[in-house]
Amino acid sequence: MNVQISKNSLVAASKVSGTYVYNLVGEHLGQVEDVMIHKVDGQVAYAIMGFGGLLGIGEKFHPVPWSLLKYDTEQGGYLVPLDKDTLMKAPSFGRSELTEDDTLWRDEIHSYYNVPPYWS
Amino acid sequence: MNVQISKNSLVAASKVSGTYVYNLVGEHLGQVEDVMIHKVDGQVAYAIMGFGGLLGIGEKFHPVPWSLLKYDTEQGGYLVPLDKDTLMKAPSFGRSELTEDDTLWRDEIHSYYNVPPYWS
Repeated sequence: MNVQISKNSLVAASKVSGTYVYNLVGEHLGQVEDVMIHKVDGQVAYAIMGFGGLLGIGEKFHPVPWSLLKYDTEQGGYLVPLDKDTLMKAPSFGRSELTEDDTLWRDEIHSYYNVPPYWS
Repeated sequence: MNVQISKNSLVAASKVSGTYVYNLVGEHLGQVEDVMIHKVDGQVAYAIMGFGGLLGIGEKFHPVPWSLLKYDTEQGGYLVPLDKDTLMKAPSFGRSELTEDDTLWRDEIHSYYNVPPYWS
């Protein structure tokens, strides 16, 4: 399920999940499984990318700083300036690790992607 | 399903859906069905509130400006400074109307709730 191309500047979170992610040379890298939202200010901090996995068992999720994603209306998906290898080797976590306490992994993520922290 | 109380400052969008919404005197008003995210800057613009409805047929959804919601860790839900009547009489829309083009309804919403526009 891809995000519909429309005049709308907004998208429902439920539609972001499932949207394909491509790199800048058009390779399909995976898809957005979920987004992590800052509870207080309502800013999306991470796209959680997934890469399939058998029935989701043992699947590892890759949080990618939202600032790296650009929505591309032509492809109907998000573009990230990353090659496939960089993304596959990125820090990844199980679902419970991800959702329990982001302070345990966010430093590692922002350091890996060399992106300023969302919380500063 | 409520948002878990944790040290986490973030919450997965999939967990926001289903979170209860209360007013300031503790009345349960409904629940968040989805959130609308600005595609470019990643800011949550609206919580889409639902109030049940038979199998979702003909259900109307109420977009509430995100700035009105405050997360309350004690109740494990969002608080809004609205009474039930105000919310029930608020502009509401079918799912397709909501997701097709927010420029058709956003002026009405911000005027009704007297909240500055998210797009200014």
